[in-house]
Amino acid sequence: MNKKRYGVLGGDLRSIKLAELIEEEGNHVNIYGFDNVGIDINFKEIKSIDEFIENSDIIVGPLPCSYDKETFNAPYHSGKIYIKEILKKIKDKQLFIAGKLGDEIVKFASLNNLRFFDLLEREEMTVLNAIPTAEGAIQIAMEEMPVTIHGSKAFVLGFGRVGETLAKMLNGIGAKTYVAARKHSDFAWIKSYGYSAVPINELGEHIKDADVIFNTIPHLILGKDILKRVRKDCLIIDLASKPGGVDFEKAEEYNIKTKWALSLPGKVAPLTAAGILKDTINNIVKEQEGLK
Amino acid sequence: MNKKRYGVLGGDLRSIKLAELIEEEGNHVNIYGFDNVGIDINFKEIKSIDEFIENSDIIVGPLPCSYDKETFNAPYHSGKIYIKEILKKIKDKQLFIAGKLGDEIVKFASLNNLRFFDLLEREEMTVLNAIPTAEGAIQIAMEEMPVTIHGSKAFVLGFGRVGETLAKMLNGIGAKTYVAARKHSDFAWIKSYGYSAVPINELGEHIKDADVIFNTIPHLILGKDILKRVRKDCLIIDLASKPGGVDFEKAEEYNIKTKWALSLPGKVAPLTAAGILKDTINNIVKEQEGLK
Amino acid sequence: MNKKRYGVLGGDLRSIKLAELIEEEGNHVNIYGFDNVGIDINFKEIKSIDEFIENSDIIVGPLPCSYDKETFNAPYHSGKIYIKEILKKIKDKQLFIAGKLGDEIVKFASLNNLRFFDLLEREEMTVLNAIPTAEGAIQIAMEEMPVTIHGSKAFVLGFGRVGETLAKMLNGIGAKTYVAARKHSDFAWIKSYGYSAVPINELGEHIKDADVIFNTIPHLILGKDILKRVRKDCLIIDLASKPGGVDFEKAEEYNIKTKWALSLPGKVAPLTAAGILKDTINNIVKEQEGLK
Amino acid sequence: MNKKRYGVLGGDLRSIKLAELIEEEGNHVNIYGFDNVGIDINFKEIKSIDEFIENSDIIVGPLPCSYDKETFNAPYHSGKIYIKEILKKIKDKQLFIAGKLGDEIVKFASLNNLRFFDLLEREEMTVLNAIPTAEGAIQIAMEEMPVTIHGSKAFVLGFGRVGETLAKMLNGIGAKTYVAARKHSDFAWIKSYGYSAVPINELGEHIKDADVIFNTIPHLILGKDILKRVRKDCLIIDLASKPGGVDFEKAEEYNIKTKWALSLPGKVAPLTAAGILKDTINNIVKEQEGLK
Repeated sequence: MNKKRYGVLGGDLRSIKLAELIEEEGNHVNIYGFDNVGIDINFKEIKSIDEFIENSDIIVGPLPCSYDKETFNAPYHSGKIYIKEILKKIKDKQLFIAGKLGDEIVKFASLNNLRFFDLLEREEMTVLNAIPTAEGAIQIAMEEMPVTIHGSKAFVLGFGRVGETLAKMLNGIGAKTYVAARKHSDFAWIKSYGYSAVPINELGEHIKDADVIFNTIPHLILGKDILKRVRKDCLIIDLASKPGGVDFEKAEEYNIKTKWALSLPGKVAPLTAAGILKDTINNIVKEQEGLK
Repeated sequence: MNKKRYGVLGGDLRSIKLAELIEEEGNHVNIYGFDNVGIDINFKEIKSIDEFIENSDIIVGPLPCSYDKETFNAPYHSGKIYIKEILKKIKDKQLFIAGKLGDEIVKFASLNNLRFFDLLEREEMTVLNAIPTAEGAIQIAMEEMPVTIHGSKAFVLGFGRVGETLAKMLNGIGAKTYVAARKHSDFAWIKSYGYSAVPINELGEHIKDADVIFNTIPHLILGKDILKRVRKDCLIIDLASKPGGVDFEKAEEYNIKTKWALSLPGKVAPLTAAGILKDTINNIVKEQEGLK
Repeated sequence: MNKKRYGVLGGDLRSIKLAELIEEEGNHVNIYGFDNVGIDINFKEIKSIDEFIENSDIIVGPLPCSYDKETFNAPYHSGKIYIKEILKKIKDKQLFIAGKLGDEIVKFASLNNLRFFDLLEREEMTVLNAIPTAEGAIQIAMEEMPVTIHGSKAFVLGFGRVGETLAKMLNGIGAKTYVAARKHSDFAWIKSYGYSAVPINELGEHIKDADVIFNTIPHLILGKDILKRVRKDCLIIDLASKPGGVDFEKAEEYNIKTKWALSLPGKVAPLTAAGILKDTINNIVKEQEGLK
Repeated sequence: MNKKRYGVLGGDLRSIKLAELIEEEGNHVNIYGFDNVGIDINFKEIKSIDEFIENSDIIVGPLPCSYDKETFNAPYHSGKIYIKEILKKIKDKQLFIAGKLGDEIVKFASLNNLRFFDLLEREEMTVLNAIPTAEGAIQIAMEEMPVTIHGSKAFVLGFGRVGETLAKMLNGIGAKTYVAARKHSDFAWIKSYGYSAVPINELGEHIKDADVIFNTIPHLILGKDILKRVRKDCLIIDLASKPGGVDFEKAEEYNIKTKWALSLPGKVAPLTAAGILKDTINNIVKEQEGLK
């Protein structure tokens, strides 16, 4: 791949790590939005936003792009960076890549004919992110359980990317792995990979066997009725984004230990997480080059 | 599941095996279309097609349903069984299930308000069929290669259901497993499962490493240019349906051993294959019961 | 197995947990040596040592049995319990089981015709203990590394019980697993299981690839010369008992992060560890019954 | 390793293959004992045995060395080659390597101060040979069973080298793997690797579950009483050398299909088998060089 000029704009420490990885591959990297980062970093921030944009072939925004739909998510910047102002300055020969753009930014970027890309829409990134998510979940289980995962009965609720990756790793460590799913084709894959399949509507009948439950389904799946049947010495780890899949209040009432673990990749394996971002950005850039 | 009356209509020995499995689960089974089967079977064929249909809640046709779009695929029947004639007799409280119906039969069945189902459209069946397909392919490789699969470099072309299942099994036996694919998300899964990913457009650069190649891609992928680089002692097994993915003439010219292996499930594991049919039919029947 | 009367004598909280597990299997359990345990436990301690011994078919001492060769290892007892005094009271129809007896205790027990058993001499216990040891080591690696174990290059030094178990689990999570060993037969097994074999005398040439190193060899293996070649971002986890296999001072000088992790089973999975003790004790008891 | 002069003396086609592999590594290779081989081979046989021995640093005899304790096992030679005559001509700077020497040859070689080595005594060779043995056994199972190995209940009797290797591969393909063994430490490993352990003396109670049984124990283990409980549709593959572990007559009487599969490596993977010989010979040669 030809060397490029990247501009990393805002974001947290993962963005700094990303900037380093991009530079290690021989690219030129500018940063903007870190005037207040407080630790030594290897980059000198460009003070002028215009100069920053002008000197970047690819502008990499934060992940998520914004919390208020108006300004970039730039926790290490002293001021506010208004999204629309920046987007207006980006030319159509440049690429704008960030995470979780949201309808409003997408609409504005489209109207301005930007070549923009949402990292969270990239299938390969969600697949790869499932790896540190699964490993982080297993780390929590190891820390919290008085028994080994090896030999334990581990229930994985949901067979999406995280569920599938988690099931594979649990099995690899030696857990007796049960996967709860809804679709016949999921059952077929679960059988093919050698796990025990549990129809989600029969979860209540089997859940008492669980030593640890990993939920990946993003709606209430462990409600009162099922929690009642969970053993008191079972650990529940919820990996589902808000509102989560566990009635945490009821679980507490029933004295069941729960952990709600979100955004694991950046927490448990920040370097791997940054590497996944970099690879995905590389894929986007290569595809765009291929179009020319 | 409530016991039912099944009518198995036409098909080959796998259909007989299927009839046995359905009966073993406590259902009543009629058969029709086997007056010339030539071996002892446990079923007495109903002579009247009207009686046969009348006494069946579920009519299970052959797989594939027809080779000529007009008559049922019934190699063990002395006469012809015309599809449309039969379909006209089926009532809307009955189910009609067969494999690979084709546009014409689908159209006719729709116009007649039949409740009909194509087994080959069932995702769970294709996933489960990948298991005997993969095992059959491995059996052929074991028979034909002078070295063990363990330690060999095995290339799997394509990462669909068969490719994924095959890669898992090869890895499980101890092959060094390479998977050639095209999509970034496939590369992500290949990496996640620990195989080596090869972009399909770079296949030519890596193929000389292969001790055995399993193709699952149903169009010409191993043409002249790539075959030139395949080692003479490499075995190629093509699992892709017609027209296949290998230029067999060129391969012969280059003295490379090839095997075109189709319809493996019924050949290498007929009982497993019949069991998959039965499970899929059970799923359809349960779903239809659930709708009521 | 017939129900028995067990006497658990001294030891730490793992011994209490062990007492509970033995009782859960329907046996009668006495304890002695916990008058100062400080937490609520389900057992009432027998005050008289004579009564305690008289009422026990099997006396289970601590693990290790003693730190001073004279008194039992009984950290939760207010007084001292002299080993020889106790052993003299044990009859030949009783069994005495403890861990790491040492030459002196063995000699005394032999002279007194005791039926005694050292848990640490039981092969099955060391094999099973390798499981929580390996899992604990992996937990530490997950906690300390900024990357996932999946995809990392993990070096396991030594292919004994812990090395073999660790290699299997690392591979199961998706690490690229290298095992350093000395014997040709070990290389054969390493190859058979699909890991990469590194002759221990060539370790220096390969060690720079390592993202994490797990040492299981109980003598200095990672000395100055090899440490020099270890990458600064590599983590070293030493699982070898004293004196360990790492020159920790040199490692610190070279700025390499090290962890010396001993007695992992009791720390990371106390319930599993107690279960392993129980199973091993059960095996001994069954074997002794079989002899009669 | 320095290049050497090898002399391959007698043996079957595997010895020819071995000669080729040794030559491919850059060594000089002479052969003797193939004047009647009947196929084109790349080597010109030295006609004079004295010249043959004189020009060989390492003399590689057949495997097994002899069937009559007197002459070499040389099926492709027109005359007889007397072992003692040859051994007398070998000098002490030369190495003599063959398989299964037997007491008499060992005694004679010792008296003559030969540096001789029995391949079958090499642990690494038996470990590596377990790989083609296991794969060959699986191939037979695939060919003979009407169901897939995936999902089948496979019983492995014995947990030696072949048993362990076979269990791993069966598990890797997706079989439900049961291992019957006798020792507590074997049970520990079986549990550690995630298979189901069956105490050999309880085999009768579990054997009815088996879809396929692989025996590796070289004495009668599947006698009348256990065979009675084996299902009629179960396949038995005996891998144990004579007298084998199955009462074949009883099995036939009970209509149970059996296969006695011996010497699989050379049959199912001759090239792998020759490679294992070569690697083992290399190890011996390297060790001897190291001694100087």
